Amino acid sequence: MDGKKTVLVIGAGDATGGEIARRFAREGYIACVTRRDEEKLKPLVDQIRAEGGEAYGFGSDARKEDAMVALFAHIEKEIAPIHVAIFNIGANVRFDITDTTARVYFKVWEMACFAGFLMGREAARVMLPRGHGSIFFTGATASLRGRAGFAAFSGAKHALRALAQSMARELGPKGIHVAHPIIDGAIDTAFIRENFPERYALKDQDGIVDPRHIADTYWMLHQQPRSAWTHELDIRPWMEAW
Amino acid sequence: MDGKKTVLVIGAGDATGGEIARRFAREGYIACVTRRDEEKLKPLVDQIRAEGGEAYGFGSDARKEDAMVALFAHIEKEIAPIHVAIFNIGANVRFDITDTTARVYFKVWEMACFAGFLMGREAARVMLPRGHGSIFFTGATASLRGRAGFAAFSGAKHALRALAQSMARELGPKGIHVAHPIIDGAIDTAFIRENFPERYALKDQDGIVDPRHIADTYWMLHQQPRSAWTHELDIRPWMEAW
Amino acid sequence: MDGKKTVLVIGAGDATGGEIARRFAREGYIACVTRRDEEKLKPLVDQIRAEGGEAYGFGSDARKEDAMVALFAHIEKEIAPIHVAIFNIGANVRFDITDTTARVYFKVWEMACFAGFLMGREAARVMLPRGHGSIFFTGATASLRGRAGFAAFSGAKHALRALAQSMARELGPKGIHVAHPIIDGAIDTAFIRENFPERYALKDQDGIVDPRHIADTYWMLHQQPRSAWTHELDIRPWMEAW
Amino acid sequence: MDGKKTVLVIGAGDATGGEIARRFAREGYIACVTRRDEEKLKPLVDQIRAEGGEAYGFGSDARKEDAMVALFAHIEKEIAPIHVAIFNIGANVRFDITDTTARVYFKVWEMACFAGFLMGREAARVMLPRGHGSIFFTGATASLRGRAGFAAFSGAKHALRALAQSMARELGPKGIHVAHPIIDGAIDTAFIRENFPERYALKDQDGIVDPRHIADTYWMLHQQPRSAWTHELDIRPWMEAW
Repeated sequence: MDGKKTVLVIGAGDATGGEIARRFAREGYIACVTRRDEEKLKPLVDQIRAEGGEAYGFGSDARKEDAMVALFAHIEKEIAPIHVAIFNIGANVRFDITDTTARVYFKVWEMACFAGFLMGREAARVMLPRGHGSIFFTGATASLRGRAGFAAFSGAKHALRALAQSMARELGPKGIHVAHPIIDGAIDTAFIRENFPERYALKDQDGIVDPRHIADTYWMLHQQPRSAWTHELDIRPWMEAW
Repeated sequence: MDGKKTVLVIGAGDATGGEIARRFAREGYIACVTRRDEEKLKPLVDQIRAEGGEAYGFGSDARKEDAMVALFAHIEKEIAPIHVAIFNIGANVRFDITDTTARVYFKVWEMACFAGFLMGREAARVMLPRGHGSIFFTGATASLRGRAGFAAFSGAKHALRALAQSMARELGPKGIHVAHPIIDGAIDTAFIRENFPERYALKDQDGIVDPRHIADTYWMLHQQPRSAWTHELDIRPWMEAW
Repeated sequence: MDGKKTVLVIGAGDATGGEIARRFAREGYIACVTRRDEEKLKPLVDQIRAEGGEAYGFGSDARKEDAMVALFAHIEKEIAPIHVAIFNIGANVRFDITDTTARVYFKVWEMACFAGFLMGREAARVMLPRGHGSIFFTGATASLRGRAGFAAFSGAKHALRALAQSMARELGPKGIHVAHPIIDGAIDTAFIRENFPERYALKDQDGIVDPRHIADTYWMLHQQPRSAWTHELDIRPWMEAW
Repeated sequence: MDGKKTVLVIGAGDATGGEIARRFAREGYIACVTRRDEEKLKPLVDQIRAEGGEAYGFGSDARKEDAMVALFAHIEKEIAPIHVAIFNIGANVRFDITDTTARVYFKVWEMACFAGFLMGREAARVMLPRGHGSIFFTGATASLRGRAGFAAFSGAKHALRALAQSMARELGPKGIHVAHPIIDGAIDTAFIRENFPERYALKDQDGIVDPRHIADTYWMLHQQPRSAWTHELDIRPWMEAW
């Protein structure tokens, strides 16, 4: 594994995580991708390999500390040092406050924030001795403000943003680049296609975000020289009302 | 219980929660105060009664859904309708990110945010049918930005702020006043006196926040007519650097 | 003028400035109110006097440095020390960016921001030697974000907010309380009644802000002890979408 | 001028504006650069030409509406359509509020904000009929918060940010990309070298921002597909405290 580098994408279950993995793989990084169901990662892993890249899929529950610790240990030992760790799990649900169960409130936080903490901490642990590395957390509109019906989701995303900002302030001066890109618009995914067909119809006019362009942005952030790091940026389609 | 009204203070373990309870009790509200250890509430309850007020202490774990639901049911049935619910639990800890255990990260969120969600939801449930009521969550500097060493605490406080803002947008048009006062400075508590003596020495110059003035602010917020509600305000001593 | 105190309201041409002046006059402050046309201040001055207060109207162009300096000198010398200075001039206009003339862009800034700077600086000059005083600037939704058609107005309001925050950080530790209340909703004024009748119709349901409640808030801010100052708070009607 | 495109940099007097012009010139854009003293632009224009690019320097006072209008007309007619317009004038001064003259307060706004409005409006006028183009305004730390001594500078930068945000919301849906990069750290300029030598000494460790990297960021923003536009991002050195 001489000179090889790993990009780890936690939450490669949607188009965004997949495109980020492909993008880094095209640049020579070994793509390690996770989601709960390993079987479902096969098409992505196959695609990256078909494109000449190296990729491994891991069925891993990002909310379990043991699993996260083991995943980092395995990749660092058996594959290649993790130079980039990207957290890309969302949990966008809507409930009136009185209909929000304690279970939902906890699960949304556990998936969209706690798992990010576990990844961020493990990434810091392997990167700090090397004095460099990139840790990125994917943000959303709900990272910026609360909204009726989004107490759970915006809570998790706000907490993730606080994690990213705290880690950036702590780890930046130690050489680790922590960033928090905020996707402030619908992304071209099966979820949007099926649930918001009118929104999806804007695709022809570039009215929803192409995950490949998100991937380009993550690659750009990783390439930034340390004299000019970006911590936060927003991404939205040109026609988005905001 | 004709015409009587309850103010519920979740987290009356510090000076702030105690002074808020006293303030509302002086205005005629029945003060129901909680902390985990009921015994420790006795001095506060005695003090309020000695001042001519009505008060009840509840040893209750605010992180337990069943306990919170039972608390609301008991007060509504046996004491008086809860017109004001105030969440005042903090959990200010500092750890480097690599030293932050999953347990700490979870516990801080559970105390400083999840318990707030439970209180907020239960308060909404009893207030919505009445079409009025006040729900306040106490914020801190960490509600506004992340900081090295504060991934856990700022995460919980950011999430609490998102909760407050989401609830305000949802419940405001239904007559419920949700506010999020942010205390951006040291408060006159035993914690500050013991751990930050230099800071505490500024007390003579009004350099730390007097909990009674916080209490005045909460009372003022509750008194605001619905044509002019405040959702967020900051409070800090005059000499505070910010 | 032994022991007497002046509240100066720059921009008392609308209901808000007028109610603030009345409120402080009821508390014993001499109300000095300004707008460009002195004649139009007569009803307000007469009303305050009829209520037993002391008031003086000044036709003064707040954008003119000489006039502002002279106004402060006159009041300090002839009337009573200015303990409270409140800036309340708005300039809410809407133009597409390509239709925004340089004249409009400048005039809006000159009225809604530059005049505020002049008042703020003069207030600082008279208050600093005394070591206390309150300087308040009225903010609006446009203080918080830009919006299509509001390049000029939001520019002026953002700049005013920066002025308030810079002054608060500089003057707070010298005993001067600088605050920036943000009125995030329609106010009960002739302007709203004539231009937004549907909005005005919400008045019966407390759907627009009553200027008397804004005045109460300003009085409350001025009364805050220096151990617990508020710099910024928002005010909006309960039914406001935000 | 078939197919040729102009990048206009207003305020190419410092390293940042110069590097942005060079960057776009290397990509084939004709660089039109301005500052008040045309003579001082010669080295930059010569350098771009020596590198194989096409460049023109204009001694132009960006605060004068006539001059800005004439500049746009001249370039559009005689050189090539302006596809990118970048506003890069700062005016970083520090004065206690009581020492801030009306002249300084006005001049800082006129340079750092009003000139930006003039450029932004003229750019919108030429770009709207074409349905595309990029308009970027350079932000600074003072765009985000006020600070003791920075009432004038932060006022101008806050107003510029409001301009950028208002224009983005208005012009985005019409195909114009408006962005506001915020440089939150010292830049490698003569100003820093001469006035903050200790800061400048961090250059060896990449502790100050290299203007070439800012230029790369502006180019990246201009290259973004319209399905994924960034409006705001921060840039700071890895070791910067923030």
